[in-house]
Amino acid sequence: MTAMTAAEAVPHSLPEREFGLLYAEVQQFYAHQMQLFDSFAAEPWAGTFTENAVFDVPTLPAPVRGRAELAANVRRNQEMQAKSGEQLRHWLGMLDVQPRSNGTLRTRCYALVYMTPRGGESRVHRVCVMEDELVLSRGRWRTSHRLVTRDDLA
Amino acid sequence: MTAMTAAEAVPHSLPEREFGLLYAEVQQFYAHQMQLFDSFAAEPWAGTFTENAVFDVPTLPAPVRGRAELAANVRRNQEMQAKSGEQLRHWLGMLDVQPRSNGTLRTRCYALVYMTPRGGESRVHRVCVMEDELVLSRGRWRTSHRLVTRDDLA
Amino acid sequence: MTAMTAAEAVPHSLPEREFGLLYAEVQQFYAHQMQLFDSFAAEPWAGTFTENAVFDVPTLPAPVRGRAELAANVRRNQEMQAKSGEQLRHWLGMLDVQPRSNGTLRTRCYALVYMTPRGGESRVHRVCVMEDELVLSRGRWRTSHRLVTRDDLA
Repeated sequence: MTAMTAAEAVPHSLPEREFGLLYAEVQQFYAHQMQLFDSFAAEPWAGTFTENAVFDVPTLPAPVRGRAELAANVRRNQEMQAKSGEQLRHWLGMLDVQPRSNGTLRTRCYALVYMTPRGGESRVHRVCVMEDELVLSRGRWRTSHRLVTRDDLA
Repeated sequence: MTAMTAAEAVPHSLPEREFGLLYAEVQQFYAHQMQLFDSFAAEPWAGTFTENAVFDVPTLPAPVRGRAELAANVRRNQEMQAKSGEQLRHWLGMLDVQPRSNGTLRTRCYALVYMTPRGGESRVHRVCVMEDELVLSRGRWRTSHRLVTRDDLA
Repeated sequence: MTAMTAAEAVPHSLPEREFGLLYAEVQQFYAHQMQLFDSFAAEPWAGTFTENAVFDVPTLPAPVRGRAELAANVRRNQEMQAKSGEQLRHWLGMLDVQPRSNGTLRTRCYALVYMTPRGGESRVHRVCVMEDELVLSRGRWRTSHRLVTRDDLA
């Protein structure tokens, strides 16, 4: 985490009124993106990333690049979970949104994964930190870079 | 889940500036509604629903209809939890808010239930998906229809 | 919890448009405050409180007062967690924001603590309720009073 002073907690590079809209848009963006992911909507989910997005998560041996690879990854998840009978839910929280002078956004949040076996007990599967770069592309926020780190591997 | 394209992630049927207010109002509405529920505030909680609201959750044998039944359900929960000594907390997250052309809102979010036995270890009790229809009634958002599905029963 | 009627769920003492900005600011404030806490950024975290803030949490034998004590508390946490190898993450949710006529805010939310041992399984550590008073001080929201109660001790 970049060492931020308390004075930077609410960004002031934007006109004050716009931060309310921006923060809501980013929350809505992530809600939609995570629901698509957990529903295995491979192409719509990949479309929430930029064409050449980099997706760097500890469950993959190397960073994934671009929408075709992102979508392929979702389809692999779908196959695995169809076999295991486990439903995963990805939650974000404690969302810190930092607008940059070039119009992009830097976000840092916590990410939880809940797992529920069919007919079984739900449990916390992973606790992670997620750092994104978001860019406006054709009128929408999209992830251009994602780095996820797992607390258990830290 | 309705298959939504990424282009639908941030609704544009409203003037852009208003989405910030709308999203905040819906979050505040749910925070209040869930806190009332977990505090067994039966009538105030029932008042966050419309008069003839339908409440369809897997823990009840049939959908509940209307405020009197909703409030009665809260009082039953209170009795059961007084006996068991367990405190439940209902959390929502990944809140997707979709305004419709008729002025109502369609929301879809994840819902977690945490359970804490008196003096014991807290745990995740349920992982659910919650789909609501919200309507403006006497100046307030209220739930007119709720459908909850449990991941363990899916 | 104060018994609130449904009519109070979305505060109307502010001009309507401003609630979107306010709610976003408070969410951003807490995201930043909790990330500083979990990263052991002692002084920046203490700076998100007012000079004479009161911090009343069940893990401490007595309420902590003022920034020097708050920062010292973070450094103690850091030492303990360095020994135990456990990473904690503090999450807030179901955030109810109530503006008061004197310009301060009263918030009530749920607070979860997740714990992850190094190389081990993550789990829910604590389920709490957090009640804050927030004041604007030098252009920023800061906590002037915090009361946290644990569900397992209730």
